[in-house]
This record gives sequence, structure tokens and C-alpha cells, in this order.
Amino acid sequence: MLQTRIIQPAEGAYQYPLLIKRLLMSGGRYEKTREIVYRDQIRLTYPQLSERIARLANVLTEAGVKAGDTVAVMDWDSHRYLECMFAIPMIGAVVHTINVRLSPEQILYTMNHAEDRFVLVNSDFIGLYQAIAGQLTTVQGTVLLTDGPDKSADLPGLQGEYEQLLAAASPHYDFPDFDENSVATTFYTTGTTGNPKGVYFTHRQLVLHTLAETSVLGSLDSVRLLSSNDVYMPITPMFHVHAWGIPYAATMMGIKQVYPGRYEPDMLIRLWREEKVTFSHCVPTILQMLLNCPSAAGQDFGGWKIIIGGSALNRALYQAALARGIQLTAAYGMSETCPLISAAHLNDELQAGSEDERTSYRIKAGVPVPLVEAAIVDGNGNFLPADGETQGELVLRAPWLTMGYFREPEKGEELWQGGWLHTGDVATLDGMGFIDIRDRIKDVIKTGGEWISSLDLEDLVSRHPAVREVAVVGVPDPQWGERPFALLVVREGQSIDARALKEHLKPFVEQGHINKWAIPSQIALVTEIPKTSVGKLDKKRIRVDISQWQASNSAFLSTL
Amino acid sequence: MLQTRIIQPAEGAYQYPLLIKRLLMSGGRYEKTREIVYRDQIRLTYPQLSERIARLANVLTEAGVKAGDTVAVMDWDSHRYLECMFAIPMIGAVVHTINVRLSPEQILYTMNHAEDRFVLVNSDFIGLYQAIAGQLTTVQGTVLLTDGPDKSADLPGLQGEYEQLLAAASPHYDFPDFDENSVATTFYTTGTTGNPKGVYFTHRQLVLHTLAETSVLGSLDSVRLLSSNDVYMPITPMFHVHAWGIPYAATMMGIKQVYPGRYEPDMLIRLWREEKVTFSHCVPTILQMLLNCPSAAGQDFGGWKIIIGGSALNRALYQAALARGIQLTAAYGMSETCPLISAAHLNDELQAGSEDERTSYRIKAGVPVPLVEAAIVDGNGNFLPADGETQGELVLRAPWLTMGYFREPEKGEELWQGGWLHTGDVATLDGMGFIDIRDRIKDVIKTGGEWISSLDLEDLVSRHPAVREVAVVGVPDPQWGERPFALLVVREGQSIDARALKEHLKPFVEQGHINKWAIPSQIALVTEIPKTSVGKLDKKRIRVDISQWQASNSAFLSTL
Repeated sequence: MLQTRIIQPAEGAYQYPLLIKRLLMSGGRYEKTREIVYRDQIRLTYPQLSERIARLANVLTEAGVKAGDTVAVMDWDSHRYLECMFAIPMIGAVVHTINVRLSPEQILYTMNHAEDRFVLVNSDFIGLYQAIAGQLTTVQGTVLLTDGPDKSADLPGLQGEYEQLLAAASPHYDFPDFDENSVATTFYTTGTTGNPKGVYFTHRQLVLHTLAETSVLGSLDSVRLLSSNDVYMPITPMFHVHAWGIPYAATMMGIKQVYPGRYEPDMLIRLWREEKVTFSHCVPTILQMLLNCPSAAGQDFGGWKIIIGGSALNRALYQAALARGIQLTAAYGMSETCPLISAAHLNDELQAGSEDERTSYRIKAGVPVPLVEAAIVDGNGNFLPADGETQGELVLRAPWLTMGYFREPEKGEELWQGGWLHTGDVATLDGMGFIDIRDRIKDVIKTGGEWISSLDLEDLVSRHPAVREVAVVGVPDPQWGERPFALLVVREGQSIDARALKEHLKPFVEQGHINKWAIPSQIALVTEIPKTSVGKLDKKRIRVDISQWQASNSAFLSTL
Repeated sequence: MLQTRIIQPAEGAYQYPLLIKRLLMSGGRYEKTREIVYRDQIRLTYPQLSERIARLANVLTEAGVKAGDTVAVMDWDSHRYLECMFAIPMIGAVVHTINVRLSPEQILYTMNHAEDRFVLVNSDFIGLYQAIAGQLTTVQGTVLLTDGPDKSADLPGLQGEYEQLLAAASPHYDFPDFDENSVATTFYTTGTTGNPKGVYFTHRQLVLHTLAETSVLGSLDSVRLLSSNDVYMPITPMFHVHAWGIPYAATMMGIKQVYPGRYEPDMLIRLWREEKVTFSHCVPTILQMLLNCPSAAGQDFGGWKIIIGGSALNRALYQAALARGIQLTAAYGMSETCPLISAAHLNDELQAGSEDERTSYRIKAGVPVPLVEAAIVDGNGNFLPADGETQGELVLRAPWLTMGYFREPEKGEELWQGGWLHTGDVATLDGMGFIDIRDRIKDVIKTGGEWISSLDLEDLVSRHPAVREVAVVGVPDPQWGERPFALLVVREGQSIDARALKEHLKPFVEQGHINKWAIPSQIALVTEIPKTSVGKLDKKRIRVDISQWQASNSAFLSTL
């Protein structure tokens, strides 16, 4: 290490640790009247939010929760979740945001693996909780979260109902200082192979992520994506990578926040209208669902800015949203990255481009946000050129990446190689720093000595007028290694078979967009494509389905 | 310390230090065509800036500068200064930004005290440098900075001229990682008593300051004060608290930057017009000078956003600027605070107020920016209520405050008491967190058992139609302890004496605004009021002048 000048602080100087409590302080003191809204049921002001966080801290402390303990939350998006995201870390404990869409076995696994000491359970999940309670190895107490009138529940170790406990607790809590490298949050990735893996983030990481996020959303680009006058409603669950960190950012800025509970399209549209929501984030499939839901029919969503992440944003959805008044901006991140890595901001050159060119960039993963360093590497870890064409695995450095997987050092070493976090995504980088995600490494189809991006192929297949939805995976092939296989949902009243798809793809081969190995020799027509708990194509499940269909020579299949 | 959960990073994980080099990375890769402009002489793109920073790092390294060394800069605001603010800290050295408006004796003192090893000297300061060179105890080499054709100068230890050295150096430098708590910058406060004191800031502090500054300027308030589409020109010197940190922020965001060299009103106005400047910062006296300069006559400055700090912003200047199209926002900070502490953002309640009410808040010191904690205390360090009325010394916590004074631990202990930085400013805090600076503690006039704010009194005196400028200080009085004394500059063709001033102030006494002790019993009519090197009223000098005038019974004086 270089011998730089380091000076001992003066006697009495305050060495400021970056703690989550500091985010709460800022918004609360400034905007006294702005509200945190929960469905059509609860409205809190910022001072009330701060007071409830202190009360919750007292409830937990009195229930025996200590610094270093892990406290789990099973709830839909709510003001209560926001309170937990502050109060639990602020007493030095770790909040485990349980992915309630995992299977009961997976939830049980994650709770035991995370060593949860205490659980806050929404009444919707009591049945699920009861079913696994007998096998939980570390939980010592529970709290009931409920919107209904019944404040009791048959939960082992129940301390009481949330609102009743808060009402009885002291409204004052002297939140202590501690090491900024203390773990604040943990949650489990919805890995497509093996058990879920626990990522974790420290106070320092979350404070830095919040500052960089507000900085980039407020300052970069001609579109001011986030200002303190916006009204925020998440449409990505709070259990999923801190709802992309926006609840922390919105609280720091004192922004009005609207929490929709369970994601019901009618409620989302109603809250959007009544609370005048201007800023959200979601994955493409959820946006698609929203635009198509009956209560949104004919609705002009003018002024709604939505960040899209989780999966690639395609041009058709971008344009469909724009036609309804929604300004979409793509962003990129993953569970391991807190999550914000890049956002599709347009620089001067791009803003001067045609609408078509601008769209091409607005739907890419975008440019790394401040402090993030991105590169692409080959299989041996050699850096590859940022020429917009060469594909390689995207690797990252940033101050807010998980430093490993909880209690699985060997998986942490796989994630981190040579000081770079390996994303498992194949990407190109261009001269402006734009990241373009081409595929997951494990979804790339290796055929005839070539790599074919399953995403590219899905894009081309989706241009066929009969195709409503598509997933392409590689399936084992004795001659070619792998061959692409397409799973299709056909539009009502239309049809397609493997031969028609080949005809559709031929021009792209002739134009050099894809090579001839990229034409699927087998397709399946299905009514629905399997998705993961966070709405992504579940390619692991799709591969299993395909092998079963192939074994049984299912009627779904159409072969060249 | 609380026993929180701290997890050892995975093998191979990159533990990201917050280093200044990371700020450079972001803007440069994104905006390839935006420029850094120096007067009408130099235009650089961001990639060129990055390359020149690497070249400068090589020049310094080859000249023998090592990590931990201090490298001083004596220059007007320039692209060169920006390059130094990056290159010097990025090699692990400390950049000392010399206040060229100090006296030669003070400059000599600061250079020896800071242990400067190396100095970059603008040709305008060669005479000054030569005069002190013989007494410099640590300097080993110099570099000439010049805009002119003559690339030689009689400077001891001269390595060469900046541009020639850069041209000959390698354009590549592998900037190392090191401890984020390494000192990056130092400069000396223009204290009104005793020797200048050296404050210092670490890489971590500057990165956090930059993130918080861009976050607050971009996201907070209905006015978007800073976006990447702005064009930035400083009108506060770069040697003065990093030009309020904006050069770092602008570089991180890839914003076009315009450096005006020495502050000549004609050049400033010309650059504003030709480069389409939209964002600046300055002290009130400089803005006043700008608005009144001949080349600004009749000019509509529509779209120019200016942050005002350094001294209190008065309503008259705010309105005069607004009438010319300039949107002013007050901010507060000091040399010890990096500097940004607060900005006068309006929340929902205030934005709904009348224009008069909005103005009252736009000219206050403002609301603490994210992560800053502010309080007021009495002389014993007891916290006082934030009721908008109680006055106390403003004390601060933030992640970017100087941790002491360089090589003067006892002065550091005075600055830091009980874990709070003591600003020496008297302020009120209100329920929204608004800070209203009332005076410097040492400028408060203690008379008849009461404290009178010299700023309040200056505001009331300035409302007299004959008064163009005013300074009020307390002078020793055997009966009352101190009595207020007013120094006035009278408008052309007008006059005033102590009796007329008393008549003017009487109604304010009757309305209870001030007590009767606040009426000055003696005033002096002068043609100019002494100011410090950064344009503030020089009350130390004023007190000396007054005692001389009183001793000689000068004709300037008018007594009740």
C-alpha cells in the first residue's frame, strides 16, 4: 500500500460512520407534510414515519432482538416494510427480506440458513408459516402484520400484532453509532440451480448506493428522473433487492411514497390515479400486464416515469408504453449488486440522434452510474475491447456489491475472481460506456462451434406476427453440442410451425444477423411460458419441460 | 461499540476505497464531446482531460513527487487547476490550493507550514514567488504555468513549462488504490486573527461530498439546480474550498465546464454569453459587481442559476438578480466544511407561500443536505431548541468536515468539542430544519447585557435610502461593554449623520425589532469598506481602523 498522508483526527472530532439512520434524518426534517401511503388504508407523514420507526425499534429491543441478530419480514409492499428496512438495521440487526414467492421449502431453507431470530408475518402467509414453523431452527419470536380487524393469529412465539405493539411502545429511541461495515440487509437470490444463495449489504454500501442513485436519477440526462416533488410507487417487490434501493432514496429526499401491498392491477392503477404517482420501477412482464389490464384501458399515463430492469426491455414494449404517455428508462443490476449498476441515460451525441436511435439506447442496460467500473472478460479473465461488438462476461467493481454469499465462501470465490464481480451475463461495451446485455452465460446456445445469444434469437422470433411470447433455450444435441429450441405462445386465431418459423428467420441469416445454426429445428406451442418468482423466463424449468416433452414425444412439438 | 454482524469478504473480493480517481472515470467515459473551456484559449474534451491528468501525474512522478508529498498550486481558475485537483491526489499526494489573495508573508507562512515540496506557479505570480523563494524551507521544484508565448521564467528549481512538460510525458498512468482516508487536499483559512490555519480533506470525504452535492442539486426542490446538460462556470476561486466542490461534481457528471482565469467582469460576461453558461456560484459582492459592470448593462441573464454563499444573501440583491433573469439559491458552508452544509431548498409548504415568503427562505442558509446534522448550542455546549427564535452557536456533524487543523492539535480541539464541529456562527434553526445565520460569534455586539446581531443591524441600516453599503462592529465602551459602530458608504449626492441614522432606527426599536442599545452612537462615513481576500467584510481591519480614527478624532466620524 502506498505511503500516503493520513492524519489522526483532532481530540473530540466526530468520525462519521455511514449508517442507514442518516438517510432517515434528512427527509424527515425537511418535508413535514409529505405522506407515506399504504393502499387506501394508511397515510403517515414523515414525522409519523420517524416516530413509528423508533417505536418499532423499541418493540424489537424489548422482544429480545440484539445487534447482530437477523429479523425476517414476510409482507407485501407496505409502510410497515419501509419501517422495517430502517428500524431493524438502525438497532444494529440485519433485516432479512423474505422472497414470499419462493416455494415453502425454499423459504424454510433461507430462514434457517440466514439464522432468522425473529419474523414479522403478514396474515396472508400464516398458513405457509405454520406449515414450516416446526422445522425452523433459530426463530424465537413472531409479530403479526395484518390489514384486517382480527389482531390475533395462531403463530408460534407470537409477541402480538404490529400496530398494537407499536402503540404500546415508547416513541423515543436513541439509535446508536456502530461500524459502517455492519451488515444491514440480507436476502436470497432466486438462483436457477441449487439452493438460494444469501447476499448481504452493509450500512456503508446502502448509504453509498442511495447517494449515487439519487445523484444519477436527479442530475444525469435531459429527463429528470427523480426529484423531491415526484410521487413514488414501487412495482418491484420490496423483498427483491430493496425495491432497487428507491425506498431508501425516496426517504432521504423526503419524497411522497405510495405502497400498493400485493400487486393487483386495479389497485396499482387506482393508486397511480388518486395519489398522482409519477415515478415507479418494474420488470417488463409486469409493465405489460399493467398496460393490458382492463382498468388501464384507454388511460393516458402522461408524466409517469418508469425505470425498467430485471430483464431486457424490448422496443415494442418501450413504444407501447410511450404511446400511453410513459417515459421508460432501462436500468441494469442484479441481486448481487444492491442493485443499481447502470441506467440508459443519453448523452449529447445520442440526444441529437433520430427517435429510432434514441430508442435503441433507451432500452439498453445503459451507462455505469458514478463509481461503478464495468469491463468484459473472456473465459480466462482477459479483458476484451469495448468496441460495441466483442462479447464477454460482464465484470464489475462498485462500492455496493455483495462481498460474497452468506455462509458459502466457495460460492463467494466463484462470484469474485481477481477482484471483479462476475455477473454471469454476456455483454458488449461500447466507446461511450454503454452496456448491452446479450445473454446469461448459461443461456447462450453453443452450437456448431458458435455462441448464439438466446436473447437475440428471441428478439428475431418475436417479430413474427403470430408470436405473442417466446423463449429460446439450448437443448443437448449429439451432433452440434446444442441446438436452439423455441417455446412459443401464439396470438389468438393465429398459428405457426417449425417450418414457418424457419422461413421467417431465413432473411436474417441471409443478411448476416445470425448464422444458419441459429434456426431452431424444434419448437413447442404452449399457452404460457414458465417464469421465475420475479417474472423472468424460467429457463431452468423450460429445459426440464422440454426434455419431458421430447421423451414423451408430446403433441406440443413441431419439428423441422 | 455494539456487536453487530461483520462478515469477512470473500477471497478475491474487491474492497472499494472511495478515491478521487473514481469521480474522473464516470464523466469521462460518458460525455466524449463535452468540453472543458479555458477563457478564449483552450478547449479540451473529457477524454483529453483524462489523458492530460495522466500526463501530469507522470510529470510530477518523474520530478520526484511521492505519495504523501504536498504539491502547491498558484493559479487563477483554469483547466490546469482542474487537472491538478485530480492528478495530484490521484498519485497519493496532497494538493495545496494557495490563496493567492493573501499577503506574501501569509503565503510564505502557509507554504512552509504545509511543507510544500513542489509548486506550480502562474506567470502572474513570478514576482511574488521570487520575493519569498529564499525563505521557502521545503520546496524542491517548480513548474511554470503560463498563457503567453514565453515558456521560460526565472523560477528556482524550475522543471519546465506545464504544456511542454505534459507534451513530453507518457499519456498513460496506472493510478493506484490506497487508503480512502488519505489526505487529498489542503488549504488555509483566511482567519481574521492569528496565522492562517490549514484545513484538510481526505479522498473519502471529497467523494462523499461530491455524491451528496450532485444528489441535492439534482433531486431536491422544484428548481433543478444542476443537471448534466448544464454549463458550469465558477465565480468563486478554485483555491477557495475547492470552488465549493463543483469542479469535482461537474467532472463526475460529465458537465461542460468553463474556467475564466482571473475574474475580470468583461471576460466573465463574455464567457457566459458565448459558452452558454447556466450554472455558477459566487459570493454576494461578486454578483453585485457583475450585475453592475458595464458589459452586463441591459443584459437579460435568463436561465442562469447561481448558488450564493460565503456571506448572507440579502433580499435586495436576490430581487435585483431575479429581475435580470438569474435564479439565486443561498447555500451555507465554510472552509472547515468542504464546504457544502445546507442549501435553501423550498419544501411543499414553502413553495405554496407568497413570493415574499418564498424569497425570505431562498436567501437563508437553508436546510442541511443529506447526511449533515446541524444543531445549536449555548456557551456550555447545551443543545438549544429549534424554534426559529432561539439563537445559539451552530454545530455540525457530516462525513466531510476537516478533522482538525494541520499541525495545530490545540486549534483542532477548539474546533471540535464534544463530537461537534463548532462553526463560530450564531444561528437559529426552525422546525423544518432551516438554518438562519445571525452573525459570527465574535461579531455579535455585547452591549447593556444584550447580544445584538451585527448582521441584523446592518440589514436595518442598509434600508436607509442614503446608505449604499454598511458594516457594523462592536467597539469597546467603558460603560456598556461594547457599543455598535457603523461604517457607511453613502450614495452619490446623499448624506447622513449619526442623528439621522438614529431617527431611521427608532421605529425598529419601537416595533421591538431591536433594543435601544442597538442604535450606534458613532458612525464613520467612508468611500470603501475593507474586505477580506474572499470578499467578506473585514471586521478585524475595520476595528483597527476605528480605533485609529477615534484616537485621532478623525473627520470621518459623526457622533450622537
